[in-house]
Amino acid sequence: MTRLWNDPQRFVDEMIDGFALANAGYVRKVRGGVTRSTRSPEPGPSLVIGGGSGHYPAFAGLVGPGLAHGAAMGNLFASPSTTQIESVIRASDRGDGVLLSYGNYAGDVLNFTAAQEAVRADGIDCRTVLVTDDIFSAPPDARDTRRGIAGDLTVFKIAGAAAEEGRSLDEVERVARQGNERTRSMGVAFTGCTLPGADEPLFSVPEGRMAVGLGIHGEPGIDETDIPTAEGLAELFVEHLLSPGEIPDGVTIDGARCVPILNGLGSVKSEELFVVYRSLALLLGERGVTLVDPQVGEFCTSFDMAGASLTLLWVDDELEGLWTAAADTPAFRRGSVTALPPADRSPDADVLDDTGAAVPEASADSRRAAERIEAVLAAIDATADRSAAEWGHLDSVAGDGDHGIGMRRGASAAREAASAALAEGAGARTVLERAAAAWADRAGGTSGALWGVILRSLATQLSDTARPTAAQVVAGVDEGRHAVMRVGGAELGDKTMVDALVPFADTLAQRVGEGAPSPAPGPTRRTPPRAEPSRRQR
Amino acid sequence: MTRLWNDPQRFVDEMIDGFALANAGYVRKVRGGVTRSTRSPEPGPSLVIGGGSGHYPAFAGLVGPGLAHGAAMGNLFASPSTTQIESVIRASDRGDGVLLSYGNYAGDVLNFTAAQEAVRADGIDCRTVLVTDDIFSAPPDARDTRRGIAGDLTVFKIAGAAAEEGRSLDEVERVARQGNERTRSMGVAFTGCTLPGADEPLFSVPEGRMAVGLGIHGEPGIDETDIPTAEGLAELFVEHLLSPGEIPDGVTIDGARCVPILNGLGSVKSEELFVVYRSLALLLGERGVTLVDPQVGEFCTSFDMAGASLTLLWVDDELEGLWTAAADTPAFRRGSVTALPPADRSPDADVLDDTGAAVPEASADSRRAAERIEAVLAAIDATADRSAAEWGHLDSVAGDGDHGIGMRRGASAAREAASAALAEGAGARTVLERAAAAWADRAGGTSGALWGVILRSLATQLSDTARPTAAQVVAGVDEGRHAVMRVGGAELGDKTMVDALVPFADTLAQRVGEGAPSPAPGPTRRTPPRAEPSRRQR
Repeated sequence: MTRLWNDPQRFVDEMIDGFALANAGYVRKVRGGVTRSTRSPEPGPSLVIGGGSGHYPAFAGLVGPGLAHGAAMGNLFASPSTTQIESVIRASDRGDGVLLSYGNYAGDVLNFTAAQEAVRADGIDCRTVLVTDDIFSAPPDARDTRRGIAGDLTVFKIAGAAAEEGRSLDEVERVARQGNERTRSMGVAFTGCTLPGADEPLFSVPEGRMAVGLGIHGEPGIDETDIPTAEGLAELFVEHLLSPGEIPDGVTIDGARCVPILNGLGSVKSEELFVVYRSLALLLGERGVTLVDPQVGEFCTSFDMAGASLTLLWVDDELEGLWTAAADTPAFRRGSVTALPPADRSPDADVLDDTGAAVPEASADSRRAAERIEAVLAAIDATADRSAAEWGHLDSVAGDGDHGIGMRRGASAAREAASAALAEGAGARTVLERAAAAWADRAGGTSGALWGVILRSLATQLSDTARPTAAQVVAGVDEGRHAVMRVGGAELGDKTMVDALVPFADTLAQRVGEGAPSPAPGPTRRTPPRAEPSRRQR
Repeated sequence: MTRLWNDPQRFVDEMIDGFALANAGYVRKVRGGVTRSTRSPEPGPSLVIGGGSGHYPAFAGLVGPGLAHGAAMGNLFASPSTTQIESVIRASDRGDGVLLSYGNYAGDVLNFTAAQEAVRADGIDCRTVLVTDDIFSAPPDARDTRRGIAGDLTVFKIAGAAAEEGRSLDEVERVARQGNERTRSMGVAFTGCTLPGADEPLFSVPEGRMAVGLGIHGEPGIDETDIPTAEGLAELFVEHLLSPGEIPDGVTIDGARCVPILNGLGSVKSEELFVVYRSLALLLGERGVTLVDPQVGEFCTSFDMAGASLTLLWVDDELEGLWTAAADTPAFRRGSVTALPPADRSPDADVLDDTGAAVPEASADSRRAAERIEAVLAAIDATADRSAAEWGHLDSVAGDGDHGIGMRRGASAAREAASAALAEGAGARTVLERAAAAWADRAGGTSGALWGVILRSLATQLSDTARPTAAQVVAGVDEGRHAVMRVGGAELGDKTMVDALVPFADTLAQRVGEGAPSPAPGPTRRTPPRAEPSRRQR
């Protein structure tokens, strides 16, 4: 379990501070994560990686010459927000385009994709290669939908080495994709991890048992067995990773060259991993595989979870050269890398911060509507505050238990941003835009991004000058519904927020079409709310 | 707890195999540990480190250019044997002398010192610098008696860098000593570790509590508190390590330069360490200390123990240069090191193995005495076999619980070596010499070394030609008693084997002096033992 923290809510921020202080020769903190602190000798494409925190050295420990240029760092096990990712991209861009690479998880895909679109709009050539190495998360014919685990390292390393060589973005993208095609992983776990401040582990495995194929956040595996011997575990790894469906196209096992990465997830120690590695080396050798530059240690952890994974990267000459190229980062160093001088920079050049932007002029009508919007957001905030514990409990059954915390952070940030904009005289559209950005940024994860999408969609139908019409609100909600389905990829019946959003949008449209009065957004701030008063109302 | 092993008895051997397989570019396995597999460009002195296993990356993970030349690897938490250390010294020697450096523990001191004497006898200039960084193991005025913990790394790194620069052995010894003078550490622990195959942790700390000053094998600390916040732990570290008695001569805190090493002992994860490091950096900065090249991670672990330690190396210009010099080892890499080609070697050149040596010719009288000696060793072996569980239980109260296993390994090896020598026609002296070497080598640790000393002392008084006299046996036992006290440093009443050995030697001398019949060594192999038959008698 985790023992050392101050305030669990500040854990990740303080962790990033400490990481950047201890590794100032490699990285500097920017909004949303870290970027290299060293000067890059040549222009060229940049590699930006990232994901939730709690997997060190993934992701920030892999930033430095020969590897990544920047890492977006979300909350514990939660995707970084779109704004955070966008900030890290802008800070890491060297003018020749950016490759985004990260493990295939819904929240990450959503936020990285939105950030990619945002920077593309500014002319940055931005591409994505997802890591999909975990063989137990989907069958071979659905490889694209697999999640990413410790195979992150091989894809990042290959792309980072190609970028360091000065290859074009096209080339960096190509080899990263080839690296992912050639990478397969599987993991096992003995215990779950306990996040800072939590009372219970995120998941549990019965004493003396081993979960096979479990994901790094406790996503279900395929099997549960008694804990095998070290040799038995090596046999299990080899059996699954060398099964015919998992051998990449163009690879023949006998005679192949392969990089093995035996990864500890947190509490399985190096000594145990070396005993397992001994058997792995023997077994793979018997199959005619030549092992290249093996890695045994911690590369993608899950806090203090007891578990291990094996990743195999089946190399050709090009991939082997890129894998073995020099790199120098806080957690992964190899070969001959000359220390680089610190980069010149203006301290705030890379911090995205629009709170200083002026609020556009607004009409009295639109400001009155904005007050109503603020009241709706206050009611949502009060509901989130009241319901956070229950939502967290529900989510701990289905997911990682952070939904209550995320909703509370998002709703509270949205309400505060709306109040601040209103105080500056903002109209309906600007208040909603500010609330959308704040929610997505502070909540992070999948639902934070989707709430940002809903509020932003609504904003696009309103203005800062005219009183919103009922038809505009209906169109905004409808646009939000379609945007959520488009961005999140969920359909009606998938048991997501779409199941509530679709009937709401339909009913609203129907009632307004039937001539119902314009939907009342609830009381303004000048009259007490009819709903139960918010405990956080100031 | 530890989950992955095959046979706990083979754990360390298999661990070393796996480690050497995974790091063939750095090390090769030799008897007793590992030595560099790379060719050293210049002749020069060598650095040999070592200790018990279970502390990875200490010690084998620190072998490579810019750091150590070889590491002697004992059993889990047990000193390597004299023979193992001697073998690693001989394999690592480059012809310009050898510096031994290791943490100050009784078993290590005993075995490293004996190995040092053995190689000195062959003309190798061999010196020793003990690491004594743990401030809670003795008061400041008894610094020399303190034990070594994560400060190992600073002393090894400084000595290794000096050797890499091509400095003389005198110089390497001087800077290593200076490094140890300038290094202070303290540790805390939340839980103990469980060794492979053990049912219970080596020690335990009550839930929610933190042991302060606990050693890395569970040696008692000075205090127990509730688990503090991350900031509170940083304050505790700084309070103790910056107390006046702990500031090295010549250092003024305000304006000093200092390398901080925040070390996780096994199950405390990087994310937690970074949160603690953030507070440490602030607190040390407030005191006017400039932090140089901080290290946050695992450098000296205690298997999966949950705990952390802080080491401070107070540098001057020379030490800072040596600390920050390039190094390239399996677990510690920095700066620009060009990969070196593999060394040429004859495969068995470094393996000490005297089993092939011819047995000196012996008289019939001496061979009869040798048979009696073998019978005594068989009786000891039977007793050890029968009593191993009880001895282990007693030792788990006072020490690390491995005494039964060690005695059994040693007694069994001694009996087998004696039988083999006897079968080749050895006399009394040779049989005892072979038994002594086998016991010390296979048992390891402190008691293994001391049993080797006892048997070897007895051997020096006997010959392979004459029948031993009672007076010679008395003299041999007396010599053994004095040798154990000299080598082990214990006095009568210190609750060691000396408390049994002294009255035994005295009584034996007295009875023989009174004209008692020559002490009977028990039945020979040709008559059944009067004592309870050994379960292992073949």
